[in-house]
Amino acid sequence: MDNVFNFSAGPAALPKTVMEQAQSELVNWNSLGTSVMEISHRSKEFIQVAEEAEQDLRDLLNIPNNYKVLFCQGGARAQFAAVPLNLLGETTKATYIDAGFWAESAIDEAQKYCEVDSYDAKTKIDGKVAVVAASDWTVADDSAYVHFCPNETIDGVEIYDLPQTDKPIVADMSSNILSQRIDVSKYGVIYAGAQKNIGPSGLCIVIVRDDLLDLASQVVPSFLNYKVLAEKDSMFNTPPTFAWYLSGLVFKWLKAQGGVEAMEQINREKAALLYNFIDSSEFYRNSVHPANRSRMNVPFQLAKPELDEAFLAQAKVRGLVALKGHRAVGGMRASIYNAMPLEGVQALVDFMREFEAANA
Amino acid sequence: MDNVFNFSAGPAALPKTVMEQAQSELVNWNSLGTSVMEISHRSKEFIQVAEEAEQDLRDLLNIPNNYKVLFCQGGARAQFAAVPLNLLGETTKATYIDAGFWAESAIDEAQKYCEVDSYDAKTKIDGKVAVVAASDWTVADDSAYVHFCPNETIDGVEIYDLPQTDKPIVADMSSNILSQRIDVSKYGVIYAGAQKNIGPSGLCIVIVRDDLLDLASQVVPSFLNYKVLAEKDSMFNTPPTFAWYLSGLVFKWLKAQGGVEAMEQINREKAALLYNFIDSSEFYRNSVHPANRSRMNVPFQLAKPELDEAFLAQAKVRGLVALKGHRAVGGMRASIYNAMPLEGVQALVDFMREFEAANA
Repeated sequence: MDNVFNFSAGPAALPKTVMEQAQSELVNWNSLGTSVMEISHRSKEFIQVAEEAEQDLRDLLNIPNNYKVLFCQGGARAQFAAVPLNLLGETTKATYIDAGFWAESAIDEAQKYCEVDSYDAKTKIDGKVAVVAASDWTVADDSAYVHFCPNETIDGVEIYDLPQTDKPIVADMSSNILSQRIDVSKYGVIYAGAQKNIGPSGLCIVIVRDDLLDLASQVVPSFLNYKVLAEKDSMFNTPPTFAWYLSGLVFKWLKAQGGVEAMEQINREKAALLYNFIDSSEFYRNSVHPANRSRMNVPFQLAKPELDEAFLAQAKVRGLVALKGHRAVGGMRASIYNAMPLEGVQALVDFMREFEAANA
Repeated sequence: MDNVFNFSAGPAALPKTVMEQAQSELVNWNSLGTSVMEISHRSKEFIQVAEEAEQDLRDLLNIPNNYKVLFCQGGARAQFAAVPLNLLGETTKATYIDAGFWAESAIDEAQKYCEVDSYDAKTKIDGKVAVVAASDWTVADDSAYVHFCPNETIDGVEIYDLPQTDKPIVADMSSNILSQRIDVSKYGVIYAGAQKNIGPSGLCIVIVRDDLLDLASQVVPSFLNYKVLAEKDSMFNTPPTFAWYLSGLVFKWLKAQGGVEAMEQINREKAALLYNFIDSSEFYRNSVHPANRSRMNVPFQLAKPELDEAFLAQAKVRGLVALKGHRAVGGMRASIYNAMPLEGVQALVDFMREFEAANA
């Protein structure tokens, strides 16, 4: 199929021009006669790739100089362990804000290492799924940090505000990093698995304030130790070089699109197009309150769930793929990360309108 | 450059036909209209990739049914922590055989989790670097397991025998897995970072006997927990899908070459060609005893080290790249993993002979 719009929640679509560049130079990169994945991570050629990727990410997110940028392995699940193992220090407690599936997964892992002061931020407003305002979150005085996940891919919930606290704020931005402007200086640690808005799976970006580098537990595996990784420029162990390279191409693509500010604008347009159509229809519904609707993951249900399979099959014929909802919630889910163009969302809305007309 | 022979120690060369296939289908895999790295790891298409790769590896190594095969992240360095965290159980000691740099790195990490009963197996025979025969290694009675690294990439040393012990044998085969026949049933755990004989960096294969799955520490990060990974078919977290796919292509390539038996034969020929030439020359030298010479990594020195730079520069012009020795030992190193064809080693020997004639 030639023109596919891929709504996968992750591993997710990458920018088409990035993939075409990767393809063109896959077996002969930089005129070396080999692939970028076949050279030493310590070669001057790869070091340049690595440094450029870091600098481009710093430019895109305006990362202050007192923050380290780490290129890790293990995805966000590894960070669920690495965060307490790196940040607890002498403390035995951390606050976790629970607004959905991924926050809860982080809590499950953290409980192995500390007492979790868990704050249930899930609520309903006007009968719709919502999140308690961050200004109302309570944080234990003796917590080492406050952890939250600002975008829940399964629930389709996004948090647009920040807690008021003097504790380090730790955010799992796996599914919304680079989708909107953020003020990095307000965070202690930001981490993000690459496979949604950055690159292929197998890479996790960690942005950590440098005063937090001296708190690691004695039992943290060295390859997850932020200080070790920072001192070794993320090359304590052999890094996932191809994923790093490809993420670097994505960063350059983002800059060419106008950076994070431009992406936020188009992401707002994409989400508005889809949510407005859903709200205008009796045939489709989304159960999240507008204040907490995710701009990245849009779950929706058909009024007639018996048509789910037909919807998916016909969508696929039109090149609209990976729309099946997560098994925990059913229905549909359109993940519309940075790499999804506006025309992809328009094609989805056009199809949804036609499907409704034929089946309402 | 068109015809390059890449002697990188790792990330290392991959088979040319594998890279060409990966390139041809990079943006449209399996007629899906997307890359294999842009689809869900839980999609039926990727599950098939994953299962085929595991089965092909099982076929290649003749892995018994009571062993699990795990596709992990983090490389061998992650396993340096994961091994004690998964295998110690109630025990507080493990035996580590020290025959070089990587064995020592594993020891450094293990010391965070247990008392290390370290056995120094480095020796000299006839003035040459060698390893004490495995039948002479001593293993503490109260050790949970015996760890060794059968191929040391930096020292160019390989161990071809196995300890006589009733403890589980744990082997870091990062640099020689699939290069020769092994009897998996003699091991408790075999692990191997992919970036030498398997695929790109960012993936680590773990083969673990299933009676060892119930010994994990409470503090092992879940994504490194062998039992969790085994129960979730290595998809507890999002796996590095592209690396998994590419490794699967390498396994199919290995089968097409005649499997591990055929690779062992050609690896013996390649190593003999290079070592015999070095031994026949006064201009080059290798300091390892023939009994422990690595078939994967061949370090050699020039009698006139002042010619090192000229050697590397002229080799590069001939398409013979990544021959610079590890900074710890200097000189040259030719890594001749499975993907290096005999003609590559022949081209290197031809060049070495000419360089000697011009400079002796």
